[in-house]
Amino acid sequence: MVTLSDVAKEANVSKMTVSRVINHPEQVTPELKKLVIQAMEELDYHPNSVAQALVNNRSNVVEFVTLEDIDTTEPYYMNLLFGFAKGLAKKQYALQLVTDRTKIEQSNADGYLITGARNGDYELFDQLKKPFVLFGENHRGFDFVDTDNKAGTRMATEYALSRLYKHIIFVGIDLKEPFEYSREAGYINTLQKRQLIPQIYRVSNHSHSAQSLIKKMYQDFKKDTCFVCASDRIAVGIIRELENQGAKVPDDFGVIGFDGVFLDQVSSPKLTTIRQSIFKMGDLLAGMLLQKIAQSGSPQGEVLIEPTLVRRGSTR
Amino acid sequence: MVTLSDVAKEANVSKMTVSRVINHPEQVTPELKKLVIQAMEELDYHPNSVAQALVNNRSNVVEFVTLEDIDTTEPYYMNLLFGFAKGLAKKQYALQLVTDRTKIEQSNADGYLITGARNGDYELFDQLKKPFVLFGENHRGFDFVDTDNKAGTRMATEYALSRLYKHIIFVGIDLKEPFEYSREAGYINTLQKRQLIPQIYRVSNHSHSAQSLIKKMYQDFKKDTCFVCASDRIAVGIIRELENQGAKVPDDFGVIGFDGVFLDQVSSPKLTTIRQSIFKMGDLLAGMLLQKIAQSGSPQGEVLIEPTLVRRGSTR
Repeated sequence: MVTLSDVAKEANVSKMTVSRVINHPEQVTPELKKLVIQAMEELDYHPNSVAQALVNNRSNVVEFVTLEDIDTTEPYYMNLLFGFAKGLAKKQYALQLVTDRTKIEQSNADGYLITGARNGDYELFDQLKKPFVLFGENHRGFDFVDTDNKAGTRMATEYALSRLYKHIIFVGIDLKEPFEYSREAGYINTLQKRQLIPQIYRVSNHSHSAQSLIKKMYQDFKKDTCFVCASDRIAVGIIRELENQGAKVPDDFGVIGFDGVFLDQVSSPKLTTIRQSIFKMGDLLAGMLLQKIAQSGSPQGEVLIEPTLVRRGSTR
Repeated sequence: MVTLSDVAKEANVSKMTVSRVINHPEQVTPELKKLVIQAMEELDYHPNSVAQALVNNRSNVVEFVTLEDIDTTEPYYMNLLFGFAKGLAKKQYALQLVTDRTKIEQSNADGYLITGARNGDYELFDQLKKPFVLFGENHRGFDFVDTDNKAGTRMATEYALSRLYKHIIFVGIDLKEPFEYSREAGYINTLQKRQLIPQIYRVSNHSHSAQSLIKKMYQDFKKDTCFVCASDRIAVGIIRELENQGAKVPDDFGVIGFDGVFLDQVSSPKLTTIRQSIFKMGDLLAGMLLQKIAQSGSPQGEVLIEPTLVRRGSTR
């Protein structure tokens, strides 16, 4: 591989001069520029992002930080990560994965994407010195990208009503976090518009918790009910226990999930779900973070991405 | 942040001199070294991996390449990636994700981890100019790390026999790839030792394909059979259809999966499975690749990691 050193030798100038021609051509005399460019052409040299990074005092590396335990993370993080990597590739950026919050500032990364943040983490953010963006809505003024959670459950609830289910129950995640409040609000608002009374249960985000809920409450649920769920994991657990109880999905009960990554496809019946555009959000987050780095940390705002309704066998 | 430039200014030397002190102190006079180190101490400067990379003609970035479609990739890639990232972090390396095989050599990465390779991809590898290692066994002499697939299915088959299932059937993945041959061999060898006759079916690696197989063949399967599967996806599909047919798992039929990431835990009953140490393999692959880079591409050999049997509700 041809290196910056080779170009410097060929042009008989210092490496720093070659760097300057690449990164700050305005600081170099036309003669010197011509000399270096000629050498680059002769050697078929393409400017190396490392040299550029050094001159710009950048590492061209950012961190992808997950504050959730990776054992409990959904497969959708994989999609987020690939989308993020795609966005980084446009600017020749690389990434480091960080799962230990105490190690966030130990590398020389130029900035951070932080995922899986909870209310208790905001104190940590105030101490960070480098630019960062969040995956997940918050109301503290930190830049973020998230799914329009409210729109998602509104779509799910409206679809359930359009399939003529008489009762619509929301099964949420028992976390006091903005995304959960938004998902509940989308459901509540839609029912209230029709003068229907909301009914909400909350479980931990595991199929087995949702299964336990149905087991305990099955006698209270009337046929012709559709469960609008805050995750596909919850939806899968509900279907499983409804079938254990001898009920028919989607005829007796409908179930609508939320996420639309992996689990919705391996379940049976396949899930009607609200699909988040996770890959796209990852790509957007990369663009937002790199822009923030280029603009020395200036605010980038909040971006909500519309999810899509995927109609399948768990609703009639 | 204190930069290499600041140190150069403070010591009144060029950036390259500072770099040389950091990376090749043997090339610098003791006086110059003292001067630079003093400046570094005064400014509390810690050598930046970017400067080191430039001097070593390295980018300190490697690629994580997936040749499989990411929509069909199992959640276990996430674990592999986090393990790989952990291994890279030990040497301050960052990574780029590449899913398009035509883009492998377009970055200035120092080397590649390639996952999801199939027989048809080996021609591509012969053309690569940078060091690379593979995740997944091959018999072409390319360095790799993989699960000891043969040991895995041997463990599964022996466990099925120990639970007193009378018939042991293997349901594999219909791919003519080394990992699949090894999984079949582990099953076949174990049965032959007991003078039992192997019986193998192959389906595509989707729960719905496994489900179809059971639907079509159910009448031929005797109770007291244990299905040893080449993946958790296949195991999940088999359980689903056995239950549809009114059979009881694990009493009438046992089912043992392979992989042990995510799906084994969300299925019901939870799967008895052969768990691959995926995170650990990712970590090892990082070490292997960085060593190969440091040794200018010299061979690193083949590493097989023993999987573990996880006993749960899908076997009696």
